[in-house]
Amino acid sequence: MSQEPFRLTATEALQAFDSGNLTVEVYARSLLDRIHKRDEVVRAWEFLDRERVIEQAKALDQVPREQRGPLHGVAIGVKDVIYTKDMPTQHNSAIYKDSFPAIDAGSVAILRQAGALIFGKTTTTEFAANIIGTKTANPHAPHRTPGGSSSGSGAAVADFQVPLALGTQTGGSTIRPASYNGIYGFKPTWGSVSREGQKIYSVSLDTLGWYGRSVEDLELFISLFAMKDDAVPRSLSDTGVRGLKFGFVKTMVWDQAGEGTRRAFEDGKARLVAAGAEVEEMEFPNEFVDLPAWHTVMLYSDGRVSFLPEYRIGKASLAADLVEHVEEAHGYTRKQYLDACDGIAALRPKWDAIANRYDAVVAPSVPDIAPEGLERTGSAVFQSFWTALHVPIVNVPGFRGEDDMPIGLSLTAARYKDQALLNVAREVGKVWVARRLDLPETRND
Amino acid sequence: MSQEPFRLTATEALQAFDSGNLTVEVYARSLLDRIHKRDEVVRAWEFLDRERVIEQAKALDQVPREQRGPLHGVAIGVKDVIYTKDMPTQHNSAIYKDSFPAIDAGSVAILRQAGALIFGKTTTTEFAANIIGTKTANPHAPHRTPGGSSSGSGAAVADFQVPLALGTQTGGSTIRPASYNGIYGFKPTWGSVSREGQKIYSVSLDTLGWYGRSVEDLELFISLFAMKDDAVPRSLSDTGVRGLKFGFVKTMVWDQAGEGTRRAFEDGKARLVAAGAEVEEMEFPNEFVDLPAWHTVMLYSDGRVSFLPEYRIGKASLAADLVEHVEEAHGYTRKQYLDACDGIAALRPKWDAIANRYDAVVAPSVPDIAPEGLERTGSAVFQSFWTALHVPIVNVPGFRGEDDMPIGLSLTAARYKDQALLNVAREVGKVWVARRLDLPETRND
Repeated sequence: MSQEPFRLTATEALQAFDSGNLTVEVYARSLLDRIHKRDEVVRAWEFLDRERVIEQAKALDQVPREQRGPLHGVAIGVKDVIYTKDMPTQHNSAIYKDSFPAIDAGSVAILRQAGALIFGKTTTTEFAANIIGTKTANPHAPHRTPGGSSSGSGAAVADFQVPLALGTQTGGSTIRPASYNGIYGFKPTWGSVSREGQKIYSVSLDTLGWYGRSVEDLELFISLFAMKDDAVPRSLSDTGVRGLKFGFVKTMVWDQAGEGTRRAFEDGKARLVAAGAEVEEMEFPNEFVDLPAWHTVMLYSDGRVSFLPEYRIGKASLAADLVEHVEEAHGYTRKQYLDACDGIAALRPKWDAIANRYDAVVAPSVPDIAPEGLERTGSAVFQSFWTALHVPIVNVPGFRGEDDMPIGLSLTAARYKDQALLNVAREVGKVWVARRLDLPETRND
Repeated sequence: MSQEPFRLTATEALQAFDSGNLTVEVYARSLLDRIHKRDEVVRAWEFLDRERVIEQAKALDQVPREQRGPLHGVAIGVKDVIYTKDMPTQHNSAIYKDSFPAIDAGSVAILRQAGALIFGKTTTTEFAANIIGTKTANPHAPHRTPGGSSSGSGAAVADFQVPLALGTQTGGSTIRPASYNGIYGFKPTWGSVSREGQKIYSVSLDTLGWYGRSVEDLELFISLFAMKDDAVPRSLSDTGVRGLKFGFVKTMVWDQAGEGTRRAFEDGKARLVAAGAEVEEMEFPNEFVDLPAWHTVMLYSDGRVSFLPEYRIGKASLAADLVEHVEEAHGYTRKQYLDACDGIAALRPKWDAIANRYDAVVAPSVPDIAPEGLERTGSAVFQSFWTALHVPIVNVPGFRGEDDMPIGLSLTAARYKDQALLNVAREVGKVWVARRLDLPETRND
């Protein structure tokens, strides 16, 4: 191997396994060594059984070549709100301490069947439902949050502890950690991937997402999850972004954008123009202004229903904000809830029509770089309305803010344009990400 | 006891426990005896451990009076697509044979915490997702289907084997068995009750439902599940249906109504009028005509995503129609899917506005009485569009069709008028159900 195995992207690891240059066991040991070296700082894992990982890796090496799955041997971290039949799923909740449902989530079952090495469980905020920080630190700057709620998955991928990890997004829980940790993160169209075995906060919002250090790696999931746009996007490998048309939308919450996001937004635009793309500033129609408030109504109201079981079982062990959801501290009526649901639903096709005027729409991922302190995981304000619209969204890294911390921008599209969006994101990544993503501890080199 | 304990409704059993006239153990043994006597004919149970039931009943009897929950000791059957931490959950699928997720579904956790005696698992069609019959027979006529997919729950409650049972509805899976078996069945507003731990067919349609032999029993779940309309409905105990206004809608699929439903529809109307209610024939606006087709597009498209894990794990063990969902034999595009989702979403508030003109809207529950044969569970045609509209719906029994078989009618309302609907259904039940529901084997007496 020309480089240590832990540095490989998933696509590269697959090639190395295929060529016979690397065994899954050697690969797994390299990742475990990386984790051993970095875990004291990053603390991305809620459950990791070193022996089990090596045993599984050895078993995968024994699989005859012709029986190997499309993700053979690739290590993947799983957010600890997603069931794994051979590991506990604890939701960062005392109520579920050592809980061990003996089933795989739908997504995990598909990945396992495809030969993935299900590595361990990554940290999450409580039920992926609030912004109270976990033990996990941002690998670029350990005094900063890695974001949430998919804290461990974002940090582990950014820190080269695994090349891929599963997250979820109900507000901004996949995209925010991607931006804060300087990696790619993708939330597909709501409903396009099984959510079986993934803890419910809001059925209408929760979406599985995933992280990688290249768009090619994100795209591995497309066929695994049988995702398919109505039209297969044309290859952009010869043209790159030249001739593509991008909408740039500051969104209705632009007043919350800090210096890092403002600069990335302008820089991203300039770099696309320089690479031959057409860009156009655009605005949401006025009727979209209620989206963030409606998202909150939906979220808190759905939380009332979702956390009632835990409230009844162990209110004292439930986070205060989730108790408030159940007790309706928010005071939202059913009428307000339905107005929010119906209002959001009516805007979805309207957004699709707007998005279809562009190859992709660019928007902020986050207010700014990862804030200091591990107590809070930051704000979902730039994501919640996209999540409500059910659109696919990808964080493309490549920018730097204060303290040389990474920051990304979001690319989005109409619903069920997932393939098309990643196809464009691949080329945008070549423009925005100047060099290969490197180890986070070398960022100031 | 003035009658055998197995004959008690849940409300009556609670009174008997409270008065000290009955122990949970004696009650449980009476139900087990009833099952022992009838199981050869009805076969409603997928899993039932007699020893475990008695052990749990004894444990409940030991709970000090002041610590007893609101459902203390009441036996409840659980459809076998809903997780129970102390029993297998097998979804009527070879893929999940002996599967034993060690967690309770959200609904089961709430019921268990309330002191319910979680009795056993009732039969279901495969993943509650098709109409291929189970082993369960209609207790009124064993050569007829009990309906599906909640086959065992409907049959067990009708046969006095338990007073309450959980079902689910994605098309017509709660209401159809209620009508076929001559009992009350209720599907609340979509999203109003936790669906955690309930196998997913369509996230946008699947709804937990429940069965009872009185409206009072259905209403027990209202406070258990913290359901609350914006306005508490006024008591009707003095006035009954007098002065209430009912819409009667034949629906866009009336051409599929058989003699039993046609007669029940007219008879139900006449009886309400005779009791002093105001009735008004009404029709769906033209734009509702696509609802049944849209429901199918949504269902099959969601099934594509939901059953991909099982398809990958064991295609050969998956029902042919579910394989077809995954393989997109239906040929629906993503655009057709979104048109269906958006079209249905736009009609929901329109239906609410119509429904709010009435105290309840009456519609057919099913095409006719339970068909002969156990191979198929009947048609969801009169329910699928209601399920898509997310409205609460209750089957009220009281009519008889061919062969003296039971048939019911549906009462529905606007979303989140669950309390109001059951409040009206209680009075309608007094008009339509001439006498107390009796043992099914005595129907021809």
